[in-house]
Amino acid sequence: MQGFIKTQETTLLLGIKEVTREIRTDDSLNIVKENDWVIEEQAIAIIYNGISHAVMMATPCDLFDFVIGFSLSESIIEKPKDILDYDIKYTEQGIEVELNISSRLFSALKHKRRSLLGNSGCGLCGVESLEQTIKNRKELTISKRIGFKVIQCALTQFGQQQTLNQKTGSVHAAAYCSKYTGNIIAIREDVGRHNALDKLLGALANKNLENSEYEQGFILVSSRASYEMVDKTIASGLNHLVSISAATSKAITWAQQHNLHLIGFASPQRQVTYTKY
Amino acid sequence: MQGFIKTQETTLLLGIKEVTREIRTDDSLNIVKENDWVIEEQAIAIIYNGISHAVMMATPCDLFDFVIGFSLSESIIEKPKDILDYDIKYTEQGIEVELNISSRLFSALKHKRRSLLGNSGCGLCGVESLEQTIKNRKELTISKRIGFKVIQCALTQFGQQQTLNQKTGSVHAAAYCSKYTGNIIAIREDVGRHNALDKLLGALANKNLENSEYEQGFILVSSRASYEMVDKTIASGLNHLVSISAATSKAITWAQQHNLHLIGFASPQRQVTYTKY
Repeated sequence: MQGFIKTQETTLLLGIKEVTREIRTDDSLNIVKENDWVIEEQAIAIIYNGISHAVMMATPCDLFDFVIGFSLSESIIEKPKDILDYDIKYTEQGIEVELNISSRLFSALKHKRRSLLGNSGCGLCGVESLEQTIKNRKELTISKRIGFKVIQCALTQFGQQQTLNQKTGSVHAAAYCSKYTGNIIAIREDVGRHNALDKLLGALANKNLENSEYEQGFILVSSRASYEMVDKTIASGLNHLVSISAATSKAITWAQQHNLHLIGFASPQRQVTYTKY
Repeated sequence: MQGFIKTQETTLLLGIKEVTREIRTDDSLNIVKENDWVIEEQAIAIIYNGISHAVMMATPCDLFDFVIGFSLSESIIEKPKDILDYDIKYTEQGIEVELNISSRLFSALKHKRRSLLGNSGCGLCGVESLEQTIKNRKELTISKRIGFKVIQCALTQFGQQQTLNQKTGSVHAAAYCSKYTGNIIAIREDVGRHNALDKLLGALANKNLENSEYEQGFILVSSRASYEMVDKTIASGLNHLVSISAATSKAITWAQQHNLHLIGFASPQRQVTYTKY
């Protein structure tokens, strides 16, 4: 069993796993066998004060950032220090992250859980009817749009800093970039785009950045800008979300309603703005 | 209000929405404004016998296929005819799909809901602890691998048939293709990859194809092959999943355990096989 746990720890550090694969380039029997890396995907259970709360399929790295970001975006905690202590356990089924939160927050969570009888769908966490989809997010202060060159600078750094993606392909990333220079200040990767953003927002919150410094950054993501990506950014208080891919209808509406600058299809010498202030 | 509903119906047919956007190609004030299409993303609530069950962010087209596929993959129904009738309602918050199922199935669902107190995370529907992640899926019968040229044929048709993606970019697709010719028999699109596959599997199940005919096809997806994409394919009884993108570690393990052929990075003159029988 010790050996198994050790393997899991190695995996935890890397977030990738070596596999053997066969490559075909024509219809013949010429098959090239080689070892390659694939991204790790594991079931991660989040447990508050001994009560299992949710399970996500995620890449097992930066787990503490992830649970902070998740707990903040789900409004289970208000600040990282609300997590009094934590423990990570490896099982054959996946990873359990056990968190201790204050009695006050745990009572609020229990109350919320009682009002949500039943299971829920992927996409909207813990939501089972349309009435519950309406979130109360404060509007952001209207801000000046970030310069074209700043975003271009962030884009040039983005690919180079996606280390898991370079090894495996198809891994999502979320980066926090300086509003003035475009330099990437922090980056997190995950098999899931929501998880990558939760990890990044958890890491930012946990660093206890000064508010002024925190507001100097913007978010750059490798995935589409969907409603939930926009909503998480609004919840974090940052006022720019830049995506290298498309934005959805609901994402544009939600961003516009909350004064978030939403930029899509960001690529060398091109970017598309969907919102206007 | 009538006007609002009419707009929603138009959206429902298309799954896309027109927006105004601004394009920048340099740091100057030269901004090109144009209208373009973005993919629709809406909250879709699924209601069984009057009880709201789950809400997903999805593209509002092929909704009946979607709810059949979702209900089958969640094991709420056993066959499409278990849905006795249905109704689709448009609200300001999103779309409600009301389904009537038999008393027997509804009792089973209520029993399942009672045993799942609390909310759950995105990624694993209705699952809140690691023990619940273990699904009992029957192993597929070991089958011969599909020919290289057959998959290449499906790939050449795939892009052309993604009509929503051609209009908007970044939409996921799942196609059902002939095992002998590679011709695409059915295709479904959605902002979410799980939804696209649920729509496709719902459409296939609803057509009541002969079992022998059903088994002659394979699934081709535009997204990564993650655990849940593999699991849904196994649940449908089909034995090939081909992805144009990467596979995850958990997807490979789950496919290998259930005799599913898993092929990734499928592209012109190249495909990678992760499983071996």
